[in-house]
Amino acid sequence: MKQNLVIAQGGGPTAVINASLAGVVAEAKESGEIDRIYAAHHGIEGLMKEDFIDCSDLSGSDIERLKNTPSSAPGSCRYKVSENDHGRIIEVLKKHNIGYFLYNGGNDSMDTCNKVSIIAKEIVVIGVPKTIDNDLALTDHCPGFGSAARYAAVTTLELGLDVRALPIHAVVIEIMGRNAGWLVAATALARTGGFKAPHLIYFPERTFDKDSFVSDVKAAQAEYGTGIVIAVSEGITDKDGKPVADSGIVDGFGHVIPGGTGQALSTILLQNGIKSRSEKPGLVGRASKLLVSECDREEAFTAGRESVRAAVSGKSGSMVGYKRISSEPYSIEYELIDLAKVANVEKKLPDNFINAAGNDVTDAFIEYCKPLIGDPIPDYFKLQ
Amino acid sequence: MKQNLVIAQGGGPTAVINASLAGVVAEAKESGEIDRIYAAHHGIEGLMKEDFIDCSDLSGSDIERLKNTPSSAPGSCRYKVSENDHGRIIEVLKKHNIGYFLYNGGNDSMDTCNKVSIIAKEIVVIGVPKTIDNDLALTDHCPGFGSAARYAAVTTLELGLDVRALPIHAVVIEIMGRNAGWLVAATALARTGGFKAPHLIYFPERTFDKDSFVSDVKAAQAEYGTGIVIAVSEGITDKDGKPVADSGIVDGFGHVIPGGTGQALSTILLQNGIKSRSEKPGLVGRASKLLVSECDREEAFTAGRESVRAAVSGKSGSMVGYKRISSEPYSIEYELIDLAKVANVEKKLPDNFINAAGNDVTDAFIEYCKPLIGDPIPDYFKLQ
Repeated sequence: MKQNLVIAQGGGPTAVINASLAGVVAEAKESGEIDRIYAAHHGIEGLMKEDFIDCSDLSGSDIERLKNTPSSAPGSCRYKVSENDHGRIIEVLKKHNIGYFLYNGGNDSMDTCNKVSIIAKEIVVIGVPKTIDNDLALTDHCPGFGSAARYAAVTTLELGLDVRALPIHAVVIEIMGRNAGWLVAATALARTGGFKAPHLIYFPERTFDKDSFVSDVKAAQAEYGTGIVIAVSEGITDKDGKPVADSGIVDGFGHVIPGGTGQALSTILLQNGIKSRSEKPGLVGRASKLLVSECDREEAFTAGRESVRAAVSGKSGSMVGYKRISSEPYSIEYELIDLAKVANVEKKLPDNFINAAGNDVTDAFIEYCKPLIGDPIPDYFKLQ
Repeated sequence: MKQNLVIAQGGGPTAVINASLAGVVAEAKESGEIDRIYAAHHGIEGLMKEDFIDCSDLSGSDIERLKNTPSSAPGSCRYKVSENDHGRIIEVLKKHNIGYFLYNGGNDSMDTCNKVSIIAKEIVVIGVPKTIDNDLALTDHCPGFGSAARYAAVTTLELGLDVRALPIHAVVIEIMGRNAGWLVAATALARTGGFKAPHLIYFPERTFDKDSFVSDVKAAQAEYGTGIVIAVSEGITDKDGKPVADSGIVDGFGHVIPGGTGQALSTILLQNGIKSRSEKPGLVGRASKLLVSECDREEAFTAGRESVRAAVSGKSGSMVGYKRISSEPYSIEYELIDLAKVANVEKKLPDNFINAAGNDVTDAFIEYCKPLIGDPIPDYFKLQ
C-alpha cells in the first residue's frame, strides 16, 4: 500500500521556498509511489497539531503559481523540538500513514529533521535546504540565497544611484544575516557600469571598530568625491562580542530589542560630523518576486524534486546539497549529505572572501557569487 | 539666432525623474527651436558654477536608456536660492545664451523656479513637477508618486506574505513622506488576492497616540489571527506636534537625527508585550526600476515634452500640471499652472481619503490612486 508524504517548513521564508514546495508536489505526483501529499501548516508545530494542507490535487497551473509566489505558502515556525515532543511526532506520523517526511529549512531545521530521522526509523526522512543566510555546511550554496543576494546587489546599485545624485552624504544599508556575512558580501555585485556602490562593506566575521569605521568613511568620501553607500550586516559586533546595535531596551519577554545596526552606524557618522541616514529593507529583501534569481528559483524547484527522488529511493537521514562543478560556465550537481553533519552547524564567510582591511570582498567571492544571482543586473545609463 | 535650453533638478530623486529629462531632450531636439540642450550638474548650484552636461547629442537609444534609469542622472541639490544669488544666476544665463530655463522638482524647487522667472524676465522659465510625496498644489498628482506608490503597495503585499508565514508578530514598515500621507496611503493597494496587509496605516495628517496604537494592534491581531503589517509615515507626530521618532541625539550640524519612526513604533509594541520588528526601505522605495509604474514613467516623459512645448510657446512662469478627466477609464490632460501658486505650498492628504479612526484609507483614495500605480500588482498564490 502506498504511503503519504508530508513536507514542513522551518525558519524564515525566502523568495523561492515555495519553489521547493512546488518541486516536491510536482515530483511526488509524477513518481507514482506516493498516495497523499501534505504540507504541514506552520512547520513541525502544525504537524504535531495534525494541521495539514492537502496538496495532492494542485493543478499544473497551481504548481506554477506557487513556484512564483514568494514566502512560505503553508507557513513556517520557529520551534525547537524537545524530547517531550518525540512521542507525539511518531504518533501523528503513524496515524496519517506518513512514509516520507521532508523538512525544508536551515541549520536549526536540519536539527529537527535529524532528530525525526533518529526517532522515526520506519519512515524516510529527507532535508531540503533553505536559507537566505547561505550558512548551511557542506553544500556549495543554499536555495534562497541567490535571490536574496540578487535583491541585495540590485538594491545597493539603485540606492547608489540615488545617493550620488544628491549633495555628499553617507548612506548605510543594513542587510540581513545575523552571524554570517554571505548576504552583505553580495552587495559587492552592485558594482557595474562604472557605478561604485557599495563603497564599504562590514561583516559579522570581523570585529567592528568605531574609529576605523569613521576613518574608512572619511577616506572613501575623499577618494570618490561623491556620496557613499555603506553595506553592513545586521549582526556586526565589537571587540567584546557585543552587538553594535544593542539598544539597551528590553521587550515584554525580557529580550533585548534587536535590529537597528544601520541606524547605529548612521548615528556614529552624525556624531562625527558626517551627514548620514540609514535604510533597512529587512524582510522585504527575502520576499521580492521581481528580484528573484532565476537560477535560484530553478535550483530550489529541483532541490524539491531531488528530495522526493531521494525519499522514494529510501535514502533516509540525508539532506539534498549542491556540489559546484564549475563557475564559468556555471554548473552544479545535486548530492546527498548526512543530516547529522549539517544540523546546527553554521558556515561563515571564509577568510579568502574578505579583503585584508575587513571592509570589502575579494575577487574570489565575486567569482563564487556571480552565477548565483542569475541574469546580469540592470545596466543603467550614466550621463557623462 | 536660436538660444540654448537648460534643465536643472532639485530635491530628492524619483524612479522616473530621468524620464522627464529624457522627454525634455527628445522634445527639444525635435522642436527645431533650440540650439544646445544643457542639464545642470547638481541643480541650481551647478548652474551657478557653470557646471553643465551637454545633452544635445544624446542618441535615441541613450534617451531610451536614460528614461529607464532611476534617480537623477545629472544630479540634484538642496539649495535655497537667496537674493545674493540673483545676480550670478542672471550672469550665467546670459553668458551661456540660455533662452529657456526648466526646473524639475517639488514645491521648494518651484519656489526656486518662480524666483528665476521673476528675476530673469527676458528668458522663458517653466517648472516640471516631480515628487514622490505627491504634495504639489493644483495638480491631480505628480510624476514620481505613481512609482513610489507602486513600490509601497507591492512591497507591503510581499512583506505581508512573509509576516503571515511566521508565528504571530507585528511588523512595522516605515514609508517616506514627512508631512503628507499620500505614499503611506498607497500601501492600501497591497490588498489583493485575499491578502490583508497592511492591517493598519498611520498618517502625518493625524495625531499619533501611543495607547490607541497599541489597542489598534491588539484588536487587529485578534481579528485576523495572524501576524499583521503596520504601515507608518516617517513623519507622524504626537499631540504636541513632536516627531514620534525624536531620538534626542543631535548631529554634528546641531540637527536632531531624523528617521527611525518605524523602529520607534516597534519599540512601543515590544514594551507592551507584542512581538515586533520594523523595516525601512527608505530611499530604496524611490529608486526601484522594476517597481516603476509604466503610467508614471510615460506621464513623467510627457511632462518633460510638455514643458519644452510650453517653453517654445513662451508661456513663462508656469508649471506643467495634470488634470484628471476620469478615473475609470483613466484619463488626464496636461495644463499649465501659475508657478507662484505652487511655490512652497504643500498639499496634504484630504480628510475624505482617511477613515474616521485615522488608521486606514477610504474607498475614495483607492479609486484615486489605483490608476497611478500602473499594471495590476502581482497575483500571488494562496494555499488553502
